[in-house]
Amino acid sequence: MHQGIGFIQDLAVVMALAGVVTVLFHRLKQPVVLGYIAAGVIIGPYTPPFQLIHDEQTIQTLGELGVVFLMFSLGLEFSLRKLFQVGATAIVAALSEIVLMLWIGYEIGSAFGWSPMDSLFLGAILAISSTTIIVKALSELGLKRERFAQLVFGILIVEDILGIAMLVLLTGIAQTGQLSAGLAMITLGKLLLFMTVSLLVGVLVVPRALNYVARTRSDEMLLVSVLGFCFGFCLLVVKLDYSIALGAFLIGAIMAESRHLHRIEHLIAPLRDAFSAIFFVTIGLMLNPAVLLDYAWPIAVITVAVIVGKIVSCGLGTFLSGQDARTSMRVGMTVSQIGEFSFIIASLGLTLKVTSAFLYPIAVAVSALTTLFTPYLIRGADPLTRRLGQAMPATLANVFSLYGQWLRSLSTGSGEPTLFSMTRRIIVQIAVNLALVAAIFLTVSYSAPYTGKLLAHWLSSEPMQRAVQWSVALVVSLPFLVAVYRKTKSLALLLAEVGVQPATAGRFTSALRYAISDLVPVVSMVGVFLLVAALSGSILPPTGLLAVVLVCAAVLLALVWRWCVKIHASMQIALRETFEEQPDHE
Amino acid sequence: MHQGIGFIQDLAVVMALAGVVTVLFHRLKQPVVLGYIAAGVIIGPYTPPFQLIHDEQTIQTLGELGVVFLMFSLGLEFSLRKLFQVGATAIVAALSEIVLMLWIGYEIGSAFGWSPMDSLFLGAILAISSTTIIVKALSELGLKRERFAQLVFGILIVEDILGIAMLVLLTGIAQTGQLSAGLAMITLGKLLLFMTVSLLVGVLVVPRALNYVARTRSDEMLLVSVLGFCFGFCLLVVKLDYSIALGAFLIGAIMAESRHLHRIEHLIAPLRDAFSAIFFVTIGLMLNPAVLLDYAWPIAVITVAVIVGKIVSCGLGTFLSGQDARTSMRVGMTVSQIGEFSFIIASLGLTLKVTSAFLYPIAVAVSALTTLFTPYLIRGADPLTRRLGQAMPATLANVFSLYGQWLRSLSTGSGEPTLFSMTRRIIVQIAVNLALVAAIFLTVSYSAPYTGKLLAHWLSSEPMQRAVQWSVALVVSLPFLVAVYRKTKSLALLLAEVGVQPATAGRFTSALRYAISDLVPVVSMVGVFLLVAALSGSILPPTGLLAVVLVCAAVLLALVWRWCVKIHASMQIALRETFEEQPDHE
Repeated sequence: MHQGIGFIQDLAVVMALAGVVTVLFHRLKQPVVLGYIAAGVIIGPYTPPFQLIHDEQTIQTLGELGVVFLMFSLGLEFSLRKLFQVGATAIVAALSEIVLMLWIGYEIGSAFGWSPMDSLFLGAILAISSTTIIVKALSELGLKRERFAQLVFGILIVEDILGIAMLVLLTGIAQTGQLSAGLAMITLGKLLLFMTVSLLVGVLVVPRALNYVARTRSDEMLLVSVLGFCFGFCLLVVKLDYSIALGAFLIGAIMAESRHLHRIEHLIAPLRDAFSAIFFVTIGLMLNPAVLLDYAWPIAVITVAVIVGKIVSCGLGTFLSGQDARTSMRVGMTVSQIGEFSFIIASLGLTLKVTSAFLYPIAVAVSALTTLFTPYLIRGADPLTRRLGQAMPATLANVFSLYGQWLRSLSTGSGEPTLFSMTRRIIVQIAVNLALVAAIFLTVSYSAPYTGKLLAHWLSSEPMQRAVQWSVALVVSLPFLVAVYRKTKSLALLLAEVGVQPATAGRFTSALRYAISDLVPVVSMVGVFLLVAALSGSILPPTGLLAVVLVCAAVLLALVWRWCVKIHASMQIALRETFEEQPDHE
Repeated sequence: MHQGIGFIQDLAVVMALAGVVTVLFHRLKQPVVLGYIAAGVIIGPYTPPFQLIHDEQTIQTLGELGVVFLMFSLGLEFSLRKLFQVGATAIVAALSEIVLMLWIGYEIGSAFGWSPMDSLFLGAILAISSTTIIVKALSELGLKRERFAQLVFGILIVEDILGIAMLVLLTGIAQTGQLSAGLAMITLGKLLLFMTVSLLVGVLVVPRALNYVARTRSDEMLLVSVLGFCFGFCLLVVKLDYSIALGAFLIGAIMAESRHLHRIEHLIAPLRDAFSAIFFVTIGLMLNPAVLLDYAWPIAVITVAVIVGKIVSCGLGTFLSGQDARTSMRVGMTVSQIGEFSFIIASLGLTLKVTSAFLYPIAVAVSALTTLFTPYLIRGADPLTRRLGQAMPATLANVFSLYGQWLRSLSTGSGEPTLFSMTRRIIVQIAVNLALVAAIFLTVSYSAPYTGKLLAHWLSSEPMQRAVQWSVALVVSLPFLVAVYRKTKSLALLLAEVGVQPATAGRFTSALRYAISDLVPVVSMVGVFLLVAALSGSILPPTGLLAVVLVCAAVLLALVWRWCVKIHASMQIALRETFEEQPDHE
């Protein structure tokens, strides 16, 4: 019982000081997060009294748990449904914000003479706003239910996804030292494939499993199961060389589709609060106030750049996507800070040893300053809009208002399915099924060295091993291949129906339509085969064996066609049910 | 982000397996705790597949956090109020159980030829029942609200206190190798003093501070403050060489008097569940199944001894304190297992390096077996009582029923305050105030080496330093000394009123009464002075200086007497308010 004294002392110091500082910052009406960081600075090695922490490694590990719970909670609040509601605006605003801030950050870094890698990381640090700070500020100001707040949450969701893509890309750039367009496409493609497949499989499996556990009505069992899924998935993600943050976010997003979302949120909240407090304290621990004085000038410049840049880019993006001027200004002024994601990116740079040591304290300082201003900026949005409106020349105001009217006139469509929406739907379904097929072949390829060893007990011939591996992948993906074929066929039918009109094709109409609707799927399947062959190059059997496998598969297919159609349909129904289920309000 | 992969992998393995096993054991209708231990055995180094855990140290540390949260939760459920309701029965039953089980354990150990220290620890391991297991079993059987369950909870509370005393005593015995009666009295006296003072001061300070924080309505701030107090107090306790378990239990008991008890329980529950799962898994990690086979015979004997011994000792104790036969049997059969406290005691022995390695796995095995039987025993209590009642000779049954009637006739008193209850009350108040005075002088004595260094800047003479230190202690304890004086005086008045009757003392009655009521307090204060002088020996100034200090104190006392009375009264009121406040049902 006496071995962990140092550790208990560390926790005691961290928690006791965090508690005091938290209450103090609440009294001063400042964000609690700043209090945690201040507590970290006080405890830290750079300020007296020295050496309050014995075992910094363990505290850092607990802080990492904080990142996991923080990202997991973000994932729980993420919802595909919510995203679709504010989709277009959120995507335009988030994209314009991230691109502009990346550029601004890079330019500022270069202007200060920093290395290209430092400048690039600075851009990434400035790109993403802080969900934690914004949610806290909006709920403290009582604005959480307003329409502009919903838009802001949509933007934050898009930012989270783009931020995760950025994490992956930055890791790639840091490791190879360059960013080739091809490599970026492959990296992003892999990420997209991984996210799609894990979301699909996860949404099919995890909520069902949790429903089963939740039926026991034991909070303890539900919590342990949730944590088991969370850390288990994080482990898988880390093994695939993605960050823990991505894993925690994805599994959170998967659990957001569970019927017991509210119970899960209640159970996770204390863990998140306790460990994110430790996480923010560890940020303070790493902060050397002396560095801040040395870099006072860059910090000031970057702070101004963040506030002005985000207001302009995000506000303009919102306005261009059709919102009115007041809403756009409020959105822009709400997102004008950086936060937890910036720390994650900054510590990524440190971990990969590609950024200079000063970048981290600068990120923390800019985050602290911009966080400090956030509540005042949100409250100042309306007066500023009014003053700008008065100061603006009448012609300019006219142009703006005409633009808004024009955009709104575009989007007034009826609710009926159009040719465009039907086509889009079929294409999405084909893409999802193709992603699953690709994932199956990739998984089998990656695991080939291990399964090969197992197979070697029975099959000594290496080509035969590959034939078996490839056949397994083919059989598992049969339902999805059948689905791709059927969806392509209905797409071809639809296009033939529209494209080949009796007026032009005359008496060949029906013949042409038949030809198109029969030919297109066959050609597509040849394309799919080529894609699959390219993806599974390492386990593709030699031509002779391949032909045998394909013939066997064709025979098998004829036998199980109806079963394939049925299993695919039931999976689709299960997926739709999970998405359409509303969480209980327990 | 990539540094903690080993740690995340450990957590993933622990949590994922715990989740699966939990659900499995729930399906099999076995206690979840057994599932965790089984998961630990599977992961552990003694069973294939080997080496699933990379960083056992960190997992052990997290398991220790589990002990802290477990004991803290026990403390939250502890309540002086509840204890008073079932007081007498609970104390008699718990004492008879602990004494008998200590003796049985020691005898069994000796019979197997184990060392005296192993035998003693075995006795301690068998003494305390498992609150966790009992609460779970009773709530699963739907018996939590029955009267015998209330009795059981009372017994568990008394057991917790006695268990903590046992932890302290065992540490003392293990370090000195012997148990002298004098040392035991001093150790227990110190423990009692520490518990009384920290409960008093804690109940005055902590609930008020938490009320203040709770007014912000932020769960995060409340949680961080609760954790700050919890770990801060644990640190203090550890620095005083008591166990973390004691600290966590005491601060929990203090917070149990907060108005926001229910909110705190809700916030702590997920932390307790997550980390106690890890704690129970670490128990399994340390379990070598091979040892269990080697010690199959002792395990069987001890398991039978625990079940029979606890049913007899606790049941008999309950019956002797005036409960009917059915209730006594149910109480006895509910507490017939060992659990978390036994693991804490067993690991204490290992940490202090005084017990053999086989004791821990035996404790775990016996706990697992007895836990397994618990639900069946609880359900079997009523049938067994009926069969025993039929089998019992009529004369014996008659004696039992007469005993019960006689006991109940004793306890039917009116609710009015008797001389006895009034005297008892005053004596308790005097004892509490004396404890506070003693604690103040002890604290100043202990901190004398540090304050002495500070004082050396102004006062070079060592006797002068001591005079200052002693004066500070005296001034701080003045309100409590005044209270002791006034309470002693009222006690003397009361006794004089009763003891000196006109019938015997005649016309000296009032003179004698005055003499007694004036003399007794003065004599008592001289006794108090001697006690204080003995406790603060290290900082007692030389006689000359002491006289000066005492004269100054007397002058000061004359000036601030009324203020002392007032401050003491307001502290008493504050204390009573806190205890009488009912927790919110939020």
